[in-house]
Amino acid sequence: LMAKQLVKSKDKIPVIIGDYGPMWVYPTSTFDCIVADPKKGTKMYGLKSYIEYQLSTTNTNRTVNHRYKHFDWLYERLLVKFGLAIPIPSLPDKQVTGRFEEEFIKMRMERLQAWMSRMCRHPVVSESDVFQQFLNFRDEKEWKTGKRKAEKDETVGCMIFAAVEPEAPDFDMTEVEQKCEAVGKFTRAMDDGVKDLLNVGQEHWKRCTGPLPKEYQKIGKALQNLSQVFGTSGYQGETDLNSAITEAGKTYEVIATMVEEQPRKDLHFLMETNHEYKGFLSCFPDIISAQKGAIEKVKESDKLVATSKITQQDKTNMIKRVSTMSYALQAEMNHFHSNRIYDYNSVLRLYLEQQIQFYEAIAEKLKQALSRFPVM
Amino acid sequence: LMAKQLVKSKDKIPVIIGDYGPMWVYPTSTFDCIVADPKKGTKMYGLKSYIEYQLSTTNTNRTVNHRYKHFDWLYERLLVKFGLAIPIPSLPDKQVTGRFEEEFIKMRMERLQAWMSRMCRHPVVSESDVFQQFLNFRDEKEWKTGKRKAEKDETVGCMIFAAVEPEAPDFDMTEVEQKCEAVGKFTRAMDDGVKDLLNVGQEHWKRCTGPLPKEYQKIGKALQNLSQVFGTSGYQGETDLNSAITEAGKTYEVIATMVEEQPRKDLHFLMETNHEYKGFLSCFPDIISAQKGAIEKVKESDKLVATSKITQQDKTNMIKRVSTMSYALQAEMNHFHSNRIYDYNSVLRLYLEQQIQFYEAIAEKLKQALSRFPVM
Repeated sequence: LMAKQLVKSKDKIPVIIGDYGPMWVYPTSTFDCIVADPKKGTKMYGLKSYIEYQLSTTNTNRTVNHRYKHFDWLYERLLVKFGLAIPIPSLPDKQVTGRFEEEFIKMRMERLQAWMSRMCRHPVVSESDVFQQFLNFRDEKEWKTGKRKAEKDETVGCMIFAAVEPEAPDFDMTEVEQKCEAVGKFTRAMDDGVKDLLNVGQEHWKRCTGPLPKEYQKIGKALQNLSQVFGTSGYQGETDLNSAITEAGKTYEVIATMVEEQPRKDLHFLMETNHEYKGFLSCFPDIISAQKGAIEKVKESDKLVATSKITQQDKTNMIKRVSTMSYALQAEMNHFHSNRIYDYNSVLRLYLEQQIQFYEAIAEKLKQALSRFPVM
Repeated sequence: LMAKQLVKSKDKIPVIIGDYGPMWVYPTSTFDCIVADPKKGTKMYGLKSYIEYQLSTTNTNRTVNHRYKHFDWLYERLLVKFGLAIPIPSLPDKQVTGRFEEEFIKMRMERLQAWMSRMCRHPVVSESDVFQQFLNFRDEKEWKTGKRKAEKDETVGCMIFAAVEPEAPDFDMTEVEQKCEAVGKFTRAMDDGVKDLLNVGQEHWKRCTGPLPKEYQKIGKALQNLSQVFGTSGYQGETDLNSAITEAGKTYEVIATMVEEQPRKDLHFLMETNHEYKGFLSCFPDIISAQKGAIEKVKESDKLVATSKITQQDKTNMIKRVSTMSYALQAEMNHFHSNRIYDYNSVLRLYLEQQIQFYEAIAEKLKQALSRFPVM
């Protein structure tokens, strides 16, 4: 907490005061990174195989290849460097079996894409050397050099706060404590809410892809079966009715498929967004406990000054550093909230739009089926 | 099979040949009977209580009261009299516990109504003395007299065929056998089809009124919960989003109720119709076996003539009677098919119409919910 370190000016992380309070400085232009084209590669004369993804960065037009384990390396570096100030969500799970299956590769790529886009949108992470170098190295040598440099970076863990420079007066300790409490309370409550929605969504997904379409299929079969029996009556003038019943039966089979496929079109995205936020939220306990640890140290500092274990100047420095930590937390929370509002608004709009289309499409199918029935 | 009986001309049951083959003679005007106004009555100084229904017959404007046990008496009479020629479906089940509960009384009344309407629509049953007397007695004394008379009626069981008078040449035995086989095959297959649809419908009913609305409720709660958490963020400018999420959550609770209530509006009628037909179809084995028994007797008759156990004239009479039975069966089947076509067309139209309204209503609710979300 008391450590001083020389931080190069280009590595400084300013916090300014915006309309919503402390905020990171956002770069004037943003970029994204497209993860695509998963290719199977081999090494050790074909003994080992792996999947390599192509990463294209939109602002530099540079394209690099990375394996999952490189992403994992990047994640570790970002976690070590920023983890006490910025939530760095985990990568999609490492999976050992079935990792060459197409469905798995597609899903992993989609999640790596989401993860990279998150990182690209973060004003501090995206501007960091390690991140830039991951996306923009020119050749194997530059990658290796960058890797070694990143691993030797000393502005990691608590040290990151030495780089943070709030352009505003220090907070007093009461405000620091209150903000920390509020963030803890909010992130725990949101974590519960997100997990709740994930559980409900999971359950709904299972029903929509399992028993429900099976039931619609059965209804469809039962109707078709009945119309087939009716067709054997030998009674004249019921062909129109029977073909209408057959069509209605087929319609319910189509509805079964629609029901089964629908979650991929709406619930999927709602789940993925919540999954991402669950990842963010699981990072907060570490961030909160770093803040709380620092607050406790400041509280103990009077005793330490009295017993001459630290000087008055040390204590002043400690208070300043805790205030800086709080600036960082508040800047990060404002980043988090503005993203959250945007993300949940987008994904819920998408969900409702898709649900509307789904119910309207079913109604339309049923209308067609109804129109086949004779009017008696 | 050989019995001769004097049947009064007003009790004769003619079979004519219509466009679709043998048919009953339909009365020029039809009537219905409205079962309504269930009232609790008591007897034995209040020791016993029962429910009495009011029956109003549309063509005579007469109103009589009957208890369930009177319906049961009528059912027994009709079964004894017509059961080998005409399917007389069972009454709704007798239930001992909970028979004074409003829901049960309503359901029973609805089914008694359906049963009475069926009987009123049947050209032979509706014109019979026992049925007319059940609906049109003027006082207790007339009811008692009519009851005794009906119980003494001898034109019952096989004897009913003595009353049937086909106005067409006799069928040959091959045709009789073929028709009998075909009816047996059709009614067994339809019985399977109807039971299948009832099972699927039952399963679907349970899902629609059980787990499915519970799930929509959970989705609704999870969304409302999340918006409540969001409301505690302290971040400015998210009130619109949060109230939109709350509304979306409430919408899913409304959808839960819609899903739960829907089966009463559509599946209910589909189930009731199939339930009625299950009742009809369960009568056919007796009808078929009466026909088959008679056919067997005719086949044995050569031997009986040879051994002088019956005369040639007896045999000729037997063949005539079997032909008459076949006329009755075919007339009844044509009645059955025309009702079936009308009933299934009506109930499936109703089902699809209600389903369309249901899905459109959900889409409408979701559209309203979507419109609350801010456009970013």
